Amino acid sequence: MFLGVDWGGTYIKAGVVDYRGKIVKSEVFASKGLRKKQVFIREIKGLLSRFRKYKIRAVGIGAPGIIDTKKGFIYYLPNIPGWKNYPLRGILRRQLRLPIYIDNDANLFALAEASLGAGKGAKCVIFLTLGTGLGGAVILDGKILEAATSACELGHTPLSIGGQVCGCGGRGCIETFVGNKYLLENYRKLKKNKAEARGVKEIFQRALAGEAEATVVWENFAEALGMFLSGMVNIFNPEVIVFGGGISGAFRLFKPLVARVIKQQAMWPQVKGLKLVRAKLKDAGIIGAALLAKRGHYETIH
Amino acid sequence: MFLGVDWGGTYIKAGVVDYRGKIVKSEVFASKGLRKKQVFIREIKGLLSRFRKYKIRAVGIGAPGIIDTKKGFIYYLPNIPGWKNYPLRGILRRQLRLPIYIDNDANLFALAEASLGAGKGAKCVIFLTLGTGLGGAVILDGKILEAATSACELGHTPLSIGGQVCGCGGRGCIETFVGNKYLLENYRKLKKNKAEARGVKEIFQRALAGEAEATVVWENFAEALGMFLSGMVNIFNPEVIVFGGGISGAFRLFKPLVARVIKQQAMWPQVKGLKLVRAKLKDAGIIGAALLAKRGHYETIH
Repeated sequence: MFLGVDWGGTYIKAGVVDYRGKIVKSEVFASKGLRKKQVFIREIKGLLSRFRKYKIRAVGIGAPGIIDTKKGFIYYLPNIPGWKNYPLRGILRRQLRLPIYIDNDANLFALAEASLGAGKGAKCVIFLTLGTGLGGAVILDGKILEAATSACELGHTPLSIGGQVCGCGGRGCIETFVGNKYLLENYRKLKKNKAEARGVKEIFQRALAGEAEATVVWENFAEALGMFLSGMVNIFNPEVIVFGGGISGAFRLFKPLVARVIKQQAMWPQVKGLKLVRAKLKDAGIIGAALLAKRGHYETIH
Repeated sequence: MFLGVDWGGTYIKAGVVDYRGKIVKSEVFASKGLRKKQVFIREIKGLLSRFRKYKIRAVGIGAPGIIDTKKGFIYYLPNIPGWKNYPLRGILRRQLRLPIYIDNDANLFALAEASLGAGKGAKCVIFLTLGTGLGGAVILDGKILEAATSACELGHTPLSIGGQVCGCGGRGCIETFVGNKYLLENYRKLKKNKAEARGVKEIFQRALAGEAEATVVWENFAEALGMFLSGMVNIFNPEVIVFGGGISGAFRLFKPLVARVIKQQAMWPQVKGLKLVRAKLKDAGIIGAALLAKRGHYETIH
């Protein structure tokens, strides 16, 4: 069995995953309290202790930022302050006495979906996780597109010069157009601070009910996402784009809007045969992290 | 010997290239007259007849647009009207009785530079050709990033929602910020149609001489190029970015401006160790096209 940890800006999801990629047992908790490194490490220890009976062989962690995957070294996490230049793997390995593998969370989501879910068998697939931020990954010929770093920070592709300041420190990244926190902020501004939504789902529900401000937020979301994806389609000529993460629950609603923008904007030979699909796996982040641990485990012992 | 043809929006450059990638003989002519397919084909025939003594084994063509490289089929050329869904390879092969290979011009520029020039030996290199349009290519582990199409249309990455209409049919592509024709147009507008530049070099010379409008064009060019490249750096984490094409003559002047924008905008772990360099080869487009022909020739006969 392997422990997969999907570390998001809002929640941490952890699960015990078997050799076939099936989640046997899982837990979810808010990640806000875990910004302190010692609290995070204590929580992972607690998980392993509660899951003791499953005989965990290795731990995989998907972290929302840029990782040196060879060293298990966290460069930084745009939406989680306090984690900069931190050798997480080395420290966890000493404390847990288990092999630890770390990669970018969106890369691991893509690894799971490409292995067991949507986009299986395609030559080139783009994966997005729509949540607090915008995670992205590309699978080319079955492999995660990575370089010296975990790379592939699709969410930090600029879509405007001199745009809104992003969590990454840049300006105008596509994440500032479609990330949850920016959508909620834009909605509150449009409502002139007189109303706010508790979550992105509430904005979408209000848009469906015909509210003008919510509709503006919704349409801007789809236009920005479509424009950004047109660029990715022009670069990669993917066969499939897979949408996962929180907002992907509204996939049925935004798919036609996004598809229309891509059709207008992207170069037509690149769009030929392109499919937009929703992620298939529940908890792909946990499964992908566990798959990373499994792969590392087998590479080590065989 | 191989014939390499570099087909640009303004010029066509053709050359006889030997087995080591050295140009033995070359010709340049304006491409405007060649928008008609029959004129283009006649011109290639003329070249082969003038170069008869070199015993050409195969012809490689770099075309400025999207190609089905397996079929040698031109989907379309954003900046050259009239070429849409054209099976150029089949038609040329019948008329010339020689093997023909076609790929995107920027991909072939990258192939030449990666094989014999700048970026040799690096794991991930981004190549730009700054000219009438903005050509782009990515070399990953020694291979051109391609898919079902010649892909990698980096120049058609949107940098603005609702921006200027681009030759590709989309809006706000980075090409509309940095392509020669857009720079000349923006300069004329800033001059309120009272003055124009004959070429982009003239704008840059005027900027160096302190002219206000030329300086605005120049600074906007560098800022847009830097923002766009920040996105590419966040996606690919390249070791080197290679600049070629007409405007790259001003590389020494724009490099510090572009580097500053990338440093501010891109995620710092992705920028670590990044080098911006100028293309090394004279006529990389011709050489890359010939290398494509050479590769095809050897794959066929061996």
